[in-house]
Amino acid sequence: MVNKNIIGSIDGSLTASDSLMDRGLAYGHGLFETMRLYRGQLPLKRWHLSRLIRDGATLGIPLNLSVVEQQLYDFQQHLTQQNIDTGVIKLIASAGLGGRGYKSPASITPRVICLYAELPDQETGQEPNIKKEQGICLRHCDYRLPCNPVLAGIKHLNRLDQVMARNEWSDESYADGLMFDQNNFLIETTAANIFLHTPQQGWITPSLNNAGVSGVMRHVLLEEIFPQLKIPVTVVEIAADQLADCNQMFTCNSVRGIRPVIGFAQGPGHKNIVVPLTIGSHTNMVQSALADHYPCFQ
Amino acid sequence: MVNKNIIGSIDGSLTASDSLMDRGLAYGHGLFETMRLYRGQLPLKRWHLSRLIRDGATLGIPLNLSVVEQQLYDFQQHLTQQNIDTGVIKLIASAGLGGRGYKSPASITPRVICLYAELPDQETGQEPNIKKEQGICLRHCDYRLPCNPVLAGIKHLNRLDQVMARNEWSDESYADGLMFDQNNFLIETTAANIFLHTPQQGWITPSLNNAGVSGVMRHVLLEEIFPQLKIPVTVVEIAADQLADCNQMFTCNSVRGIRPVIGFAQGPGHKNIVVPLTIGSHTNMVQSALADHYPCFQ
Repeated sequence: MVNKNIIGSIDGSLTASDSLMDRGLAYGHGLFETMRLYRGQLPLKRWHLSRLIRDGATLGIPLNLSVVEQQLYDFQQHLTQQNIDTGVIKLIASAGLGGRGYKSPASITPRVICLYAELPDQETGQEPNIKKEQGICLRHCDYRLPCNPVLAGIKHLNRLDQVMARNEWSDESYADGLMFDQNNFLIETTAANIFLHTPQQGWITPSLNNAGVSGVMRHVLLEEIFPQLKIPVTVVEIAADQLADCNQMFTCNSVRGIRPVIGFAQGPGHKNIVVPLTIGSHTNMVQSALADHYPCFQ
Repeated sequence: MVNKNIIGSIDGSLTASDSLMDRGLAYGHGLFETMRLYRGQLPLKRWHLSRLIRDGATLGIPLNLSVVEQQLYDFQQHLTQQNIDTGVIKLIASAGLGGRGYKSPASITPRVICLYAELPDQETGQEPNIKKEQGICLRHCDYRLPCNPVLAGIKHLNRLDQVMARNEWSDESYADGLMFDQNNFLIETTAANIFLHTPQQGWITPSLNNAGVSGVMRHVLLEEIFPQLKIPVTVVEIAADQLADCNQMFTCNSVRGIRPVIGFAQGPGHKNIVVPLTIGSHTNMVQSALADHYPCFQ
């Protein structure tokens, strides 16, 4: 949209586009959801949207569920008309216009952006679905997540932490990287949550009270899948040195589902030593139960 | 610009605008500068651009000084043609297109956005210049800045910290708010750096090794103004309780120059008690010397 009160340029070309004044761009004042599109449906939509509405309130972004749902529905209809039924829909909800000063406008009109993307494997010409992973290796990120109890858990647009960590390596043999906070607690990977098993503690996943993104898939596993399988799982602080006791590990997010970890690099000073892991029966059970509930993760 | 590979919508309207894929919006992967425009010139331009280029390197954004300068020059020319010679130019330099995944594209083409805004006082119909402030009051923000040594000092686009803090109050009798880090050290205000004077330590300004924005005006004061006046000033960690010893204080940024503080609210439990301060001779000297160097701050 063009606003005659806006005087701006992008890469040297004059423009009056009001997107230049979006608080999402100006300050990262917004949220996003990355949703798996499967046979024209968004199987995890209700989890995504309930998180979006809840965290919008924390950021002072008043989102109306039925408005967001309608825009999302219209966008899905458009994709269907284009014969697109598989991939990812990224939804960005920003605090809208008002990039002048940190204080939010007295009345915020959120801006909702929908974006379609192919699945990661579609881009590389593989089948238009994500196969159950046969196992990935994880790097150890040097970058430390800051502790921020107010914003912890929220999938907001301030993602320099993940950008800095993910840019530490280019070696594609590492699919992702373990991220720790400033106190050396394990939190997540750059693009997923993490679950691990130790003989002493059973299944555990990091507490996200101080840092990290509270992922939809993590929520589904904690609330639906683990309970259904009657496998106990605990949300707990996990110190970096507890990784030495780990005998099963997987990462999870709402695009790729579960990715078993078959090796992770040790920390500073041991960068090139990869600790091997096997994919245990519990990991297989969780992966199968998830696929039963949500066939997109078959 | 429209890219036929982009399928998106904004507030329900279909669009193929490539700005939806900008890493500035997606992740806050970018920087900004807010520059005072005075008589068609940007008096602090060299400080702003040197900071921009330096911090771009930290974020993996390769900025070419002469390219940025040319775009800025063209934008200034455009403003001159519109008979605009006073105000603020905000320059955003993002990591450009590539909002798919946290990893930066193998080759980043930064995107440079220039935006004009009136001076804060122009908007309220006052004279088209910012008068030397007669003194402001500061609130005490509850929100704590996270400690992040890697990103500390950088004026990046991840500014939810400032948004959260600035939205704590609406009472316009407080022009700004004091911000502290998680360890209760004073860092800055929501939109400015801060200098204070105590009988024991003389002039001090917070160390920004763990949090805060390393402002251009702070730099000018530390490098040019204080040395010229032969007034010693120290960059040091300042614990919250040291505020009790303060007898002069001012905030500074590159839009408003120096704003003497004539009162600040005490911290939690004492919210409504404002500690009064007088504007001392040193503050007046610094303010005058700055105006001599940079007449835009007269």
